[in-house]
Amino acid sequence: MTTQAPPRDTPPRAPPTMRAAVFHNVGDIRVEDVPRPQAGPGEALIRVTTTTICGTDLHILRGEYPVKPGLVIGHEPVGVIAELGVGVTGYALGERVLVGAITPCGQCHACLSGHLSQCGHGHDCEALGGWRFGNTIDGAQAEYLLVPSAQANLARIPDDLTDEQVVLLADIASTGISGAEAGGVTLGDRVAVFALGPIGLCAAIGARLLGAAMVIGVDGDDGRLAMATRMGVDVVLDHRKVDVVAEIRRLTGGVEVAIEALGTQQTFESALRVVRPGGTLSSLGVYAGKLAIPHDAFGAGLADVRIVTTLCPGGKERMRRLLAMVRSGRLDLRPLITHRFKLADIAEAYRLFGERRDGVMKIAITP
Amino acid sequence: MTTQAPPRDTPPRAPPTMRAAVFHNVGDIRVEDVPRPQAGPGEALIRVTTTTICGTDLHILRGEYPVKPGLVIGHEPVGVIAELGVGVTGYALGERVLVGAITPCGQCHACLSGHLSQCGHGHDCEALGGWRFGNTIDGAQAEYLLVPSAQANLARIPDDLTDEQVVLLADIASTGISGAEAGGVTLGDRVAVFALGPIGLCAAIGARLLGAAMVIGVDGDDGRLAMATRMGVDVVLDHRKVDVVAEIRRLTGGVEVAIEALGTQQTFESALRVVRPGGTLSSLGVYAGKLAIPHDAFGAGLADVRIVTTLCPGGKERMRRLLAMVRSGRLDLRPLITHRFKLADIAEAYRLFGERRDGVMKIAITP
Amino acid sequence: MTTQAPPRDTPPRAPPTMRAAVFHNVGDIRVEDVPRPQAGPGEALIRVTTTTICGTDLHILRGEYPVKPGLVIGHEPVGVIAELGVGVTGYALGERVLVGAITPCGQCHACLSGHLSQCGHGHDCEALGGWRFGNTIDGAQAEYLLVPSAQANLARIPDDLTDEQVVLLADIASTGISGAEAGGVTLGDRVAVFALGPIGLCAAIGARLLGAAMVIGVDGDDGRLAMATRMGVDVVLDHRKVDVVAEIRRLTGGVEVAIEALGTQQTFESALRVVRPGGTLSSLGVYAGKLAIPHDAFGAGLADVRIVTTLCPGGKERMRRLLAMVRSGRLDLRPLITHRFKLADIAEAYRLFGERRDGVMKIAITP
Amino acid sequence: MTTQAPPRDTPPRAPPTMRAAVFHNVGDIRVEDVPRPQAGPGEALIRVTTTTICGTDLHILRGEYPVKPGLVIGHEPVGVIAELGVGVTGYALGERVLVGAITPCGQCHACLSGHLSQCGHGHDCEALGGWRFGNTIDGAQAEYLLVPSAQANLARIPDDLTDEQVVLLADIASTGISGAEAGGVTLGDRVAVFALGPIGLCAAIGARLLGAAMVIGVDGDDGRLAMATRMGVDVVLDHRKVDVVAEIRRLTGGVEVAIEALGTQQTFESALRVVRPGGTLSSLGVYAGKLAIPHDAFGAGLADVRIVTTLCPGGKERMRRLLAMVRSGRLDLRPLITHRFKLADIAEAYRLFGERRDGVMKIAITP
Repeated sequence: MTTQAPPRDTPPRAPPTMRAAVFHNVGDIRVEDVPRPQAGPGEALIRVTTTTICGTDLHILRGEYPVKPGLVIGHEPVGVIAELGVGVTGYALGERVLVGAITPCGQCHACLSGHLSQCGHGHDCEALGGWRFGNTIDGAQAEYLLVPSAQANLARIPDDLTDEQVVLLADIASTGISGAEAGGVTLGDRVAVFALGPIGLCAAIGARLLGAAMVIGVDGDDGRLAMATRMGVDVVLDHRKVDVVAEIRRLTGGVEVAIEALGTQQTFESALRVVRPGGTLSSLGVYAGKLAIPHDAFGAGLADVRIVTTLCPGGKERMRRLLAMVRSGRLDLRPLITHRFKLADIAEAYRLFGERRDGVMKIAITP
Repeated sequence: MTTQAPPRDTPPRAPPTMRAAVFHNVGDIRVEDVPRPQAGPGEALIRVTTTTICGTDLHILRGEYPVKPGLVIGHEPVGVIAELGVGVTGYALGERVLVGAITPCGQCHACLSGHLSQCGHGHDCEALGGWRFGNTIDGAQAEYLLVPSAQANLARIPDDLTDEQVVLLADIASTGISGAEAGGVTLGDRVAVFALGPIGLCAAIGARLLGAAMVIGVDGDDGRLAMATRMGVDVVLDHRKVDVVAEIRRLTGGVEVAIEALGTQQTFESALRVVRPGGTLSSLGVYAGKLAIPHDAFGAGLADVRIVTTLCPGGKERMRRLLAMVRSGRLDLRPLITHRFKLADIAEAYRLFGERRDGVMKIAITP
Repeated sequence: MTTQAPPRDTPPRAPPTMRAAVFHNVGDIRVEDVPRPQAGPGEALIRVTTTTICGTDLHILRGEYPVKPGLVIGHEPVGVIAELGVGVTGYALGERVLVGAITPCGQCHACLSGHLSQCGHGHDCEALGGWRFGNTIDGAQAEYLLVPSAQANLARIPDDLTDEQVVLLADIASTGISGAEAGGVTLGDRVAVFALGPIGLCAAIGARLLGAAMVIGVDGDDGRLAMATRMGVDVVLDHRKVDVVAEIRRLTGGVEVAIEALGTQQTFESALRVVRPGGTLSSLGVYAGKLAIPHDAFGAGLADVRIVTTLCPGGKERMRRLLAMVRSGRLDLRPLITHRFKLADIAEAYRLFGERRDGVMKIAITP
Repeated sequence: MTTQAPPRDTPPRAPPTMRAAVFHNVGDIRVEDVPRPQAGPGEALIRVTTTTICGTDLHILRGEYPVKPGLVIGHEPVGVIAELGVGVTGYALGERVLVGAITPCGQCHACLSGHLSQCGHGHDCEALGGWRFGNTIDGAQAEYLLVPSAQANLARIPDDLTDEQVVLLADIASTGISGAEAGGVTLGDRVAVFALGPIGLCAAIGARLLGAAMVIGVDGDDGRLAMATRMGVDVVLDHRKVDVVAEIRRLTGGVEVAIEALGTQQTFESALRVVRPGGTLSSLGVYAGKLAIPHDAFGAGLADVRIVTTLCPGGKERMRRLLAMVRSGRLDLRPLITHRFKLADIAEAYRLFGERRDGVMKIAITP
């Protein structure tokens, strides 16, 4: 690198600000100027080139999941390395990277136990991981994003993949597929997925990638049922029209794995009622209030059922594996990106997404 | 074997009857003469030398778990082979055997999938397994017991082990230890066990056998707390005196595995609240009514918690392994046998056991 | 069933003989009349409708794997139930079934431990399982086949699947896919398969079904390399033209799983040299003589490498899962069946297969 | 901390040197003054209070394992934190810590895949982990030790444990127990351990801690056989006196897990010959030259045997678990420490250890 001209990704001298989507209050998100961060030891700064909006961001905007006012939200970043802090090695400025929604430190007891998504729970590690972007630290709906524990979290993107091919890997693909993995899907399994939003669809796709023989998807939205069929779900059931528990039992005699991807009592209970003895209910939904387990559905404790909750594992190795699946052509989530907005117009994107208008599934946000 | 005199274990010519504890109605169990069964193809008849009473038998007697009137109850047999049906090979009359409470057929889809305790759920196998003794077929509180799928279920007892050393293996040891296994207890884990009846005690013992570094037991009965200490539980907590959730969190910061061994909302919820993110709740209790999962205890779905229910695996290989643990001296459950009764007096044994009088833990029943 | 006329699948009164391919001596196999077996307790007789020849049968014919003269060989049967012995329930005469090459009893210590393919090793079970057809008991290249432990081994074939769609499941698909399973293939793995005969191809297909991101196949036969590409192998390497170890290392930096499917020192060592530390070598080949592990390839014991050998698990549950994969369209092995012969002409089929003439992969044999 | 007097663990102003055991050449190790290191970003400096000599150190001294002249050797440190580099949080100067022989970074692809002992193999992480102390960076046989990736590698020692209670955890206990874990030892297993040096003994102890029903130890040294009995090995066999393969087969019919802890063709082959089909050979030895696998011992590829090599996992979570086992009284390795030397006299300690004089097992080295 020469000294004559500043390289493209070097930050300008001053004043270091950037545009970002800031949460002010329930229902109030604004794109405004905020200080542009700088990479400290172990951190990296990336210039965000594509991001998206997650259902969890909607929960934040609606006040259903509390975050501090003033926070930049968003947790699904694709970008270019703009700064590397002391101690981050093996990367170069200008490299295009994907960063997972979960940013494990790799060095706390949870991480060293393999529970990357639980990083920093407990007090052994101030370099807190787990889900931090747009939750406890500033997030990805901005021009720049500061990445903690960068050594563990920057995944290089192969040149032949576009941003839109990979942006959904950061959270929904990783989370959805984790639901299938946590369910222990194995060759020849029958799998039922309850709710076919982006996460549920990815869970269904994951079940197929892991060898399921039959994937059944349940929803009550025509667009989502159609999308599920397009994405390779074997059987789609409309819960407005059929008794889905009875129908799944008729088709399978009970599934090896049921995946819950909505977070309601109804879907949880239905999922439990279609699992065969010895099977697993993998729960991806985030529940509010008490969740009741009917003891009869639970086999009165005699049915060897496992109930597993999952938060997507993060880290660059997870992202590397998902990128490899995209590159091989086995995983193509582009059909899920139904809309595109500029960061400046993100408030409108939130409205569209929140109202589920125009068959929206996922929205790509660019600077 | 000579032909001059009938061998000891050959059934007398006629009339083939035997004494057995028969369930007549709620609260009404009677020892009476019933037809003595004969071993058909694939079956074996054993002359019961020792059995015991399980908490589940109490549920039956109290009408809390329904069985057909006229059933011989009990599912924990030690005995001597009296008859071998066609197709049962490699055994000899007179051999002393242990038979597990669960009698898997080994040949249905559940068994061939490794879910031995779920044998026969589904319609693929008329040789139904799962829990059958004293549930769907006549049980062990009798002079003789007909064993289905005998090839898969007769475990020879080494000569140097007494009946009392092994009778608790058939159910409570296998079930309790399964709770620790299903919880995934591994080296250095911290494990909390809620309720220290025979099953809970065995779960605690199992956790230790599998490498737990700290086993915490919770109960509210002085005798059981004292027994737990005697059996090697590291820390015993009396829920009448301390806030057990707070205390367990103080001692461990959250356990890797919590085991529920009672089947109540209170113990289930406490168990859930002491599991650290990434940990497992292994549930052994049999619940009545709805079980509520408080979403906050469930980490709002963000905590990667597994909830696992377990029914003890059966089969002669499981019994062989437990017998080997007894023989090596690692597993000695004799202190749990606090009382002894003759089969003729079993009604009195039920009363003592049901009222939890005289520090009763388990009662050995002999002919 | 009427009584007027004997049903099609009822054996004729007398004399009960059948045509069968009998091994007489090295190089000497003859189709001749042999006694037609009858189903005893726990057994079933099936009328074979389609079978095939395995590489192992060639080893037998060449004297490389010893069996008793007079044995009917073959272990890959599709057929129709002609007789059901006492104790086999839930099936009806005339049902079309697939039987795996391995026929586990389900009731010995190995089976009850989940090692179905090791059934009967050890002395605990006279109903020996493991690989028996065409090895220790009469096999499938005949008009009729006696199936031991029938309850555990008869897998119903859905009506909409043809014999040729399913006949390769009995051994090569189950064995090949087991190689990928035993290797622990997981989402995003890079997998290299050494030798692309039918088993190796199925291993490659299995790796893909289980979520591998990149499957590399190695062979030195143009037809097999072309078939591999057709069956979805991502990268095919010709060992006559490239240094395959160097090339695989260049492409992947070391694979998570290498699968050996030939049984030679060369392929074993190459497989070992491409596995990354922490990875697995899954060995499917049957070796003759000493196999040398170069300590440097073994990481001098510092590389956490696993070497796993696999024999295909059998049993009707395994077959059910594979049948479900065929039915869903995920597994289509029909392209591998390149030739068809009548049982009467099987000697010619053996010659073709042994000489690898005319691009032969697998040969369907019908009565 | 006051400014009046330098705290005990603050380094003296100048010149910063320390005493250390430096490898000069084959057979030439000298205790001399070397520069005392300082903790850079992410590092910690510990003042070593106890260390020991490993068999691998002997290999180095004898030139059998090559390291660069000038290296300080040793990889088993107990000490007190003397300096903390930038970015290492949650620790205080003066805390007593144990550091594993393997120091994973936690942030490379291998670590994030859970292969902590393979950290840094591959080029993705300059903060190389894996085995570094006394191998590629200066080691623990010195007054001070620089710890890389300190956040992931400093395990606090409870006050009530002495240095000698914990110093063997850094390598031999972790490695030996890993051998049992990698072998998949489970409740009721029969385990045979070949060679009862410190690692083999720890493997035997580990097998018992994980639930083995019978642990058989094989060696040809009276002292080691006696020590094995003292440490709880159930059956000890002297290979000078009995055919150990025949005897183990007689006792068990084949073990579920065999552990090789020496690194010779003889022990490897014997271990392979006692494993039952479906079992695992866990190999801890470091081999020189080719290792031959007799195909008959390998079941000709038909026996479903796994061969697993293991390098001890490191990191503070592993050490925390082992410390917890010591604290609970389940793991007491003090009997293995048979001799004690000062660092100044370490050359004499090496001679004693190398000649296996005076029943030496492990030697504690203090400043």
